[in-house]
Amino acid sequence: MTSATPSTYSRVIPMIEFWFELGSNYSYLSVMRIEALAARHGITITWRPFLLGPIFKSFGWDSSPFVLQKAKGSYVWRDMARQCEKYGLPWTRPTQFPRRALLPMRVATLGAEQPWMGAYCKKIMQMNFVEDRDIDTLEAVSNALEQLGLPAAQIIADAQSDEQKHRLRLQTETAQARGIFGAPTFFVRDEMFWGDDRLEDALAFAASAG
Amino acid sequence: MTSATPSTYSRVIPMIEFWFELGSNYSYLSVMRIEALAARHGITITWRPFLLGPIFKSFGWDSSPFVLQKAKGSYVWRDMARQCEKYGLPWTRPTQFPRRALLPMRVATLGAEQPWMGAYCKKIMQMNFVEDRDIDTLEAVSNALEQLGLPAAQIIADAQSDEQKHRLRLQTETAQARGIFGAPTFFVRDEMFWGDDRLEDALAFAASAG
Repeated sequence: MTSATPSTYSRVIPMIEFWFELGSNYSYLSVMRIEALAARHGITITWRPFLLGPIFKSFGWDSSPFVLQKAKGSYVWRDMARQCEKYGLPWTRPTQFPRRALLPMRVATLGAEQPWMGAYCKKIMQMNFVEDRDIDTLEAVSNALEQLGLPAAQIIADAQSDEQKHRLRLQTETAQARGIFGAPTFFVRDEMFWGDDRLEDALAFAASAG
Repeated sequence: MTSATPSTYSRVIPMIEFWFELGSNYSYLSVMRIEALAARHGITITWRPFLLGPIFKSFGWDSSPFVLQKAKGSYVWRDMARQCEKYGLPWTRPTQFPRRALLPMRVATLGAEQPWMGAYCKKIMQMNFVEDRDIDTLEAVSNALEQLGLPAAQIIADAQSDEQKHRLRLQTETAQARGIFGAPTFFVRDEMFWGDDRLEDALAFAASAG
């Protein structure tokens, strides 16, 4: 009997890496869409939360390009409304953008391999882009976790440990080292796909490469 | 009998405005795809060549974002190869990017309402993104026009008139005034769609708004 190497596994179970930010509006589209689409293709999702802020800073930007480039910024909200309509997703243009998402991102780092990860990310995204609510608060994150029947206080305490903070920083550095420049980004092995617009292509590639 | 107002016409014959640049790689995809797709929907194309350079300069950029943002730049060439494969289009990564396109753009300005416009733009795009050839030369533009059986010398002389130069500058200013920040961009009435990825959505909107 031959032993299974990681590359053998990746052929058996097709996998997509989903790099995203809970403050990112185009990540909202993918968070809401990826689980159903991946399930249809029999593809496993590896959740990779990372912070966009340090990536943008490395380009010399002190905010989102949608804030810094005024013309692109106005367009993006029209595009979001149309994309949400196309995909049957609820949408409210946030009155604050981009919203800080450090605490919910730390919880996402902790929860990346937990069965509640997808549902948790959807809750936070809905607060940000449907309910127009701040998400970087104890109250918002607690609400999201409680609505899923999870021990919110314990999870939040664990998420704020030095270990989890370090993991999120490390994941962000890894994103940068892999050439990620925006969110969402998908990887199938070494093949990179940028933007919610490429989610279907990335999944098709994962299915065919599987 | 009621007289037909412009808005009545636009309801009768659905129309899409196609704003593009002959030096832009994502415009290449749309130039190659738009005629067949628009014909299928019964939509008329209004060709709107404009210069990206002055738009980028207004953002404080001295080149394409694909040159200025290194990570995005490397990604774009992989994305282009995949998109071309998906659409069955030939593709060669240009050894020079972005290529100057002033002369071919002036000819495109002159030809915007001519029956040869689509075929001419395809020829220039093929030189840039398939044959990896300079396009801002008398030879390249002459070749493209001659291959279409057109009087190249006369067209090029007309395209370099002060009137045509002025028209291209004006069209670029109009692009900026309408909030265009990249190419290709499509307008259906006042609805703006950015990027080759939105070509199908723009055409569907034109068809339904018609």
